[in-house]
Amino acid sequence: MGFSLSICITDFFTYETSKSVVVKSWSVGIINRIVQLLIITYFVGWVFIHEKAYQVTDTGIESSVMTKVKGFGYHHGKVVDVADYVFPQQGADVFCIMTRLIITENQFQGKCAESVPMFSCNTDEDCHKHFGAILSNGVITGVCLKSPDESEGQCEIEGWCPVENDSVKITPMFDVNNFTIFIKNSIRFPLFDVTRGNFPSTMTSDEIKKCTFHPETNPFCPIFRVRDVLQHTGQDLAALAYKGGEIGINIEWKCNLDLDIEYCVPKYSFTRLDAPFAKNAVSKGFNFRFAKYFKTENGTDFRTLYKAYAIRFDIMVTGNAGKFDTIPTLINLVAAFTSIGLGTVLCDIILLNFLKGAEQYKAKKFEEVSEAQIEASLARSPGSQLSLKSGIKNSYDSGAISLATPDQPL
Amino acid sequence: MGFSLSICITDFFTYETSKSVVVKSWSVGIINRIVQLLIITYFVGWVFIHEKAYQVTDTGIESSVMTKVKGFGYHHGKVVDVADYVFPQQGADVFCIMTRLIITENQFQGKCAESVPMFSCNTDEDCHKHFGAILSNGVITGVCLKSPDESEGQCEIEGWCPVENDSVKITPMFDVNNFTIFIKNSIRFPLFDVTRGNFPSTMTSDEIKKCTFHPETNPFCPIFRVRDVLQHTGQDLAALAYKGGEIGINIEWKCNLDLDIEYCVPKYSFTRLDAPFAKNAVSKGFNFRFAKYFKTENGTDFRTLYKAYAIRFDIMVTGNAGKFDTIPTLINLVAAFTSIGLGTVLCDIILLNFLKGAEQYKAKKFEEVSEAQIEASLARSPGSQLSLKSGIKNSYDSGAISLATPDQPL
Amino acid sequence: MGFSLSICITDFFTYETSKSVVVKSWSVGIINRIVQLLIITYFVGWVFIHEKAYQVTDTGIESSVMTKVKGFGYHHGKVVDVADYVFPQQGADVFCIMTRLIITENQFQGKCAESVPMFSCNTDEDCHKHFGAILSNGVITGVCLKSPDESEGQCEIEGWCPVENDSVKITPMFDVNNFTIFIKNSIRFPLFDVTRGNFPSTMTSDEIKKCTFHPETNPFCPIFRVRDVLQHTGQDLAALAYKGGEIGINIEWKCNLDLDIEYCVPKYSFTRLDAPFAKNAVSKGFNFRFAKYFKTENGTDFRTLYKAYAIRFDIMVTGNAGKFDTIPTLINLVAAFTSIGLGTVLCDIILLNFLKGAEQYKAKKFEEVSEAQIEASLARSPGSQLSLKSGIKNSYDSGAISLATPDQPL
Repeated sequence: MGFSLSICITDFFTYETSKSVVVKSWSVGIINRIVQLLIITYFVGWVFIHEKAYQVTDTGIESSVMTKVKGFGYHHGKVVDVADYVFPQQGADVFCIMTRLIITENQFQGKCAESVPMFSCNTDEDCHKHFGAILSNGVITGVCLKSPDESEGQCEIEGWCPVENDSVKITPMFDVNNFTIFIKNSIRFPLFDVTRGNFPSTMTSDEIKKCTFHPETNPFCPIFRVRDVLQHTGQDLAALAYKGGEIGINIEWKCNLDLDIEYCVPKYSFTRLDAPFAKNAVSKGFNFRFAKYFKTENGTDFRTLYKAYAIRFDIMVTGNAGKFDTIPTLINLVAAFTSIGLGTVLCDIILLNFLKGAEQYKAKKFEEVSEAQIEASLARSPGSQLSLKSGIKNSYDSGAISLATPDQPL
Repeated sequence: MGFSLSICITDFFTYETSKSVVVKSWSVGIINRIVQLLIITYFVGWVFIHEKAYQVTDTGIESSVMTKVKGFGYHHGKVVDVADYVFPQQGADVFCIMTRLIITENQFQGKCAESVPMFSCNTDEDCHKHFGAILSNGVITGVCLKSPDESEGQCEIEGWCPVENDSVKITPMFDVNNFTIFIKNSIRFPLFDVTRGNFPSTMTSDEIKKCTFHPETNPFCPIFRVRDVLQHTGQDLAALAYKGGEIGINIEWKCNLDLDIEYCVPKYSFTRLDAPFAKNAVSKGFNFRFAKYFKTENGTDFRTLYKAYAIRFDIMVTGNAGKFDTIPTLINLVAAFTSIGLGTVLCDIILLNFLKGAEQYKAKKFEEVSEAQIEASLARSPGSQLSLKSGIKNSYDSGAISLATPDQPL
Repeated sequence: MGFSLSICITDFFTYETSKSVVVKSWSVGIINRIVQLLIITYFVGWVFIHEKAYQVTDTGIESSVMTKVKGFGYHHGKVVDVADYVFPQQGADVFCIMTRLIITENQFQGKCAESVPMFSCNTDEDCHKHFGAILSNGVITGVCLKSPDESEGQCEIEGWCPVENDSVKITPMFDVNNFTIFIKNSIRFPLFDVTRGNFPSTMTSDEIKKCTFHPETNPFCPIFRVRDVLQHTGQDLAALAYKGGEIGINIEWKCNLDLDIEYCVPKYSFTRLDAPFAKNAVSKGFNFRFAKYFKTENGTDFRTLYKAYAIRFDIMVTGNAGKFDTIPTLINLVAAFTSIGLGTVLCDIILLNFLKGAEQYKAKKFEEVSEAQIEASLARSPGSQLSLKSGIKNSYDSGAISLATPDQPL
């Protein structure tokens, strides 16, 4: 009992290594080393250095953006300030700067003539076909309003009257180009609990008040002149101000946290977001309608309707942070080592098929054992096998790791 | 010196391949090939074709959404248009369409009776227990307002008076079903710098104005009828209009950039976002309060308070894009090849344990060398080992790749 | 023909296993097992149990947030309610609670003196240098407004008059501490189609109305007292109310979907988002300007300008869900098995270099074959090789899987 346990333990603490054939051949030896070198170069250069496969990456960046626009413009003969031209006013990460307003003042509930040309009519029947229209300025009543001396009338609508006439030409507020946008962005990488702000804490009040962002000379100034932003997107300023548009300000945080945290800085880029629709015949620009509501002395509601063409700015924060971690390193190292082994596949094919003396190499590499041999051997010495086995009890571990401990070879 | 360097180089350019035992046995041979076939099928079919493991995936989709609602409704005897019923008005990706309004006009600052039944009282003491209440319509003063002929009074509040009475029955604005939502969505996959819009650039102005989204017949029309959206979520329209609710419009971009870019198109789906709360006894629907502010002639502020039941639409853009890349391909190929090798684990277990002649196979596969043998051999020929080694200097490369170059075997 | 096909098939159904050397040595055997044990421990303990490498993870959480603030405060001698102090009013996931208002009433378009000290002047020339200034309250006209008896005047601006004077001291509305925020959050993991709400469906109306969130005693109550939220972030309440600030309420969903779905619950945490800027000399706090617009009897527009200091709350929903999946399991198992094999690298180095009898072990592990031997053997028996090959046609499968079937060794 004690003896067999000791045998078990002895059998367990063995070490199994594969038997190798070493081929001393210049041709295949050089090919072997070149293939290995290529594989190592690929893994070291591309996978590890370029792709940083030894890092774990946090892509779940948390971000908070606060914006503040400053500047004054003249529009409709009035000076407008930030409370007038920014929507919404709370300084969110998506905001619109109004560039052109079509104002329809003193609208009361009632019935009046439509202004849009497609609702012109001669008889009431002409208007009936527009029932349920949504491109009008109100509910089509089915009545054609036409004074006797006119050749063509307009359908009547019910709703806020008088209706908006958006065919009037209004010069856009080009002052928008001089407006500045202040962006305060704080981010956090929850996996590493790293928090960063978009401008250095060493910046003084004076520096911030006077600086303007420039990609090369002032890349960390958080104040952006609208003109610069539009120019970076390569857009026509006049067209944008006239029809409106959507501009994306992308703040990209690519942080290698294996380096000093001070290198974790934002990178700004600017795109026109509605660019995919530039080729479309329709739906260019950006506009929306809103109203201001008033009451007459006797309590009747009326409103001023605004159709605002605006430039919408979307501050989009993206980024990821990487930091050394054992798991990706290990997995990629294993992949690397295994890949080096795969070089033998190519060399084996060359060695065993194309090299002079391939048959000899095969004879060296492969040892053959066939069922016939085994059966013959079993038939010859049924007793000897048993006698050999007496006294030698093997412990077989579970296959995967050390497949089986061998018997004593004869 | 020159001689030993030449030996070094010769030793370096060797090729080491594992010595194999080839078992010519039908049973284990067939099992071997079947296991290999299964592993290959799994990798080719599932990992590579289905899961596209050869692609690198960009999940950091950047998206910009612009919305525009059109349509007219009747509510409280007035025609309301988009400037009246959409909040916020700028066409954001999250917007509410008001379906039912409880209007409390002409509220002035002052003191008045609470309307909510839970604040009924007989004496001032009844009201004292409500100090600091937040479910009232104003600050509880602690006074019970009760005329002598009434059996029950109401606590007095300080705040905007008169208070809102939200128990009035208002018919929802069912016209909302005919409203249309125009969605303009442009996305970008930063990793591949691919930009797409949610409707094809070949769509003409007329097509867009006339079409309505339908999942089968018109899957790329960007105009959605509210009724259709609600129906796709399987919701009761009347209940939604009455209590409000949250509807998600999901735009999913799953792009295989190995194919033509024209196949990178959006897929729309619709869900009721507050569905997890459907079973709850509380907090069904969606409503919020807002106010419009006015001034009397003498400058006193007053307001009209609105409690708006609304359907909130959240446009949620998700998606990812995949494109062939060498790194995931390589890693998965290595995993595949290594897995094929793992088939030998199973076959070895069968071969060495369950096959007839297992001991013979073991004898063939394993060569044993014990410490005792080595010591005996060292004792026998201490000189011979040295003599053999004289003149043969080995270069041992660093272990990992070519573990060690062997001496000449005797 | 039939005969050679049968040979082909026989050759195909062979099984190739590497020939191994089993070293019966205590020292290297123990090292081998310890290294294997360490690798297994690492994979089982860290990779599989801690990092859950057997799961596929959905990080693309879809979320919808609805908020509702309740409470009353006194500010500027008036009672303000939710319609007055929350911006925007629709209950979005980012909202501001106003804590201090600087009110500038009855602003009309016109010209008047600037209030900011930096625009003081003695002559018009002093003002000319401010042309185009954006830190003023309107467009600098270049005129210095100065009464003869004053030592110093102020530059004139054109815009909304009178200008705001934000140096007045206003006591913040400290009542904000007693306000409550109700958060309704529904999330979805699209990969697994799992939908969850942030409070259990078993919660009754009464429970929700009465509860207040507490991280330990009431972690699932969706009602948060503002004071508690601020305290959890460790912020000074008075400073926050005075200067404003940004507070993040993070809802984290970490769901192991291999467990019961009821364990998939939110975890709340609170941070001050503008913390990275705490050290900065500038831009502390949070404020924005908005205006309410009125009309005089004769139709002239005027407005009341508000500079609102506010606490902004950002509800940020993050999370991921994991569920068992074969692909990551397989890839990590392969990595694990391959890594176990890598233990032999270390042991081989020890065995073949540092152990007593290393040369003998090398002789056992490596079989050498050199070009010289092969050439000698080819020269000796050019005929025998051919004669042996006659009648024996081998099928060579494609190298990768079964590298080559060997010839019969002599």
